[in-house]
Amino acid sequence: MFVTETQIRIHYALTDQMGVVYHGHYAQFYEIGRAEAMRQINYSYKDIEAIGIIMPVVDIHSRFLRPAKYEDLITVKTILKELPIHHKIMFHHEIYNQQDELLNTGDVTLYFIQAKGMKRCEMPDDLKEKLAGYFPKITD
Amino acid sequence: MFVTETQIRIHYALTDQMGVVYHGHYAQFYEIGRAEAMRQINYSYKDIEAIGIIMPVVDIHSRFLRPAKYEDLITVKTILKELPIHHKIMFHHEIYNQQDELLNTGDVTLYFIQAKGMKRCEMPDDLKEKLAGYFPKITD
Amino acid sequence: MFVTETQIRIHYALTDQMGVVYHGHYAQFYEIGRAEAMRQINYSYKDIEAIGIIMPVVDIHSRFLRPAKYEDLITVKTILKELPIHHKIMFHHEIYNQQDELLNTGDVTLYFIQAKGMKRCEMPDDLKEKLAGYFPKITD
Amino acid sequence: MFVTETQIRIHYALTDQMGVVYHGHYAQFYEIGRAEAMRQINYSYKDIEAIGIIMPVVDIHSRFLRPAKYEDLITVKTILKELPIHHKIMFHHEIYNQQDELLNTGDVTLYFIQAKGMKRCEMPDDLKEKLAGYFPKITD
Repeated sequence: MFVTETQIRIHYALTDQMGVVYHGHYAQFYEIGRAEAMRQINYSYKDIEAIGIIMPVVDIHSRFLRPAKYEDLITVKTILKELPIHHKIMFHHEIYNQQDELLNTGDVTLYFIQAKGMKRCEMPDDLKEKLAGYFPKITD
Repeated sequence: MFVTETQIRIHYALTDQMGVVYHGHYAQFYEIGRAEAMRQINYSYKDIEAIGIIMPVVDIHSRFLRPAKYEDLITVKTILKELPIHHKIMFHHEIYNQQDELLNTGDVTLYFIQAKGMKRCEMPDDLKEKLAGYFPKITD
Repeated sequence: MFVTETQIRIHYALTDQMGVVYHGHYAQFYEIGRAEAMRQINYSYKDIEAIGIIMPVVDIHSRFLRPAKYEDLITVKTILKELPIHHKIMFHHEIYNQQDELLNTGDVTLYFIQAKGMKRCEMPDDLKEKLAGYFPKITD
Repeated sequence: MFVTETQIRIHYALTDQMGVVYHGHYAQFYEIGRAEAMRQINYSYKDIEAIGIIMPVVDIHSRFLRPAKYEDLITVKTILKELPIHHKIMFHHEIYNQQDELLNTGDVTLYFIQAKGMKRCEMPDDLKEKLAGYFPKITD
């Protein structure tokens, strides 16, 4: 398992007139969590785009348990439970506030796609190698 | 069943550097679809907040099939399959582009909550009456 | 002078916890106003990008007089006071609510830039022709 | 003069299809800069709202010199050149990228307003005291 954490300070633009963070912004928090996860293994989504691969989100499932509020310092926990199979990678996210209360969970599935031709492809090898150390080696 | 449609023109702010609408913005499209659905029966979410009830989103499940692009005129189809049971209401959304291709589906669950005390409550009676005509009457 | 109007319904995502539209969203309203202005002369910013020209915003000045609120149906008035000189075009925007109160004004300056090489260029000829009819012909 | 700095990592949601940060998002960067400035003197905009004062933005002037890009780590420099006069406070912002290139400047004027009655008021005394140390004392 590959688990990372990153923190985000809630600014005013993220609130709505219910006085809490607008539900539609959590997809951004997951995105920030995934990018930081990559950065912690010295990888960047920018590197992936640079070799002609894009990673569109194909599925998101969010559950909203408690609201995040203005000035909260939330923690986005990003969990890769297993290495991607073929063109598909799934991240699980958990978002906590500064009282360590679980606010939200999100499951986000992305595909690896070759930008030229828009065909599904596998995870780039160098990323696979960087991630492999976090997962048990499967032997015959 | 209560089905309504509304159209949204994609403006530049909604795109990202993949050249398509950022996935995180679809939650807004569902929200616009729900608000327009209410408006078509002469109701408004503003009316609900005015009587002290809020409707937080508690669950969203989105599937992304094809991207929406800059200047697309998308149609958000909003479907209420059944009248809410107790404090819970679920909308199904389908988003189409101007070629009538299905781009995205979203299932959004909201609760009716009394703002004062934050306790779950039932759908307001006047809204229930307005919606009732769209659903078969269940008799014993 | 070339003057056009377009309407925008305020949805929840645009509000903040002050109970009004977040000030940072007005730049989007101006953008929607400009795009609709182009559309009314059968032109599209997409056409401009298609011929390799981009139009980055280089200056915005906004004045906030009254707040826009949830469910307001605002009118964005977009005014081109003069034809662009060289690579520079300036739009003036006025935003009104449904009571015809002036909420906001914005002056937005954009450049015409060749995407390849990022050099300043003139407005495309076909757009200039379409706009010319709205302005007095200057003769010697 | 009161000068503070804060950093923001550009995430994907902030980009547009021009491949750079959408111009409309800079107002958020200024807002984050102002909030961090307050935090550095152990103050918070939340404290201001808690005593019934709101601070609507009444004027923004932005100049865009160079684009910010995905994954850039930008620095928002927030400068209060003088203590507020009556109900008016003006912040100057400068945004730099990691190569220390100036990307953008923004002048933002806000008012102190009593939420109840919406009347202009002065800056809260405790905030004035915290800020006073950064400015020369004017004596007769």
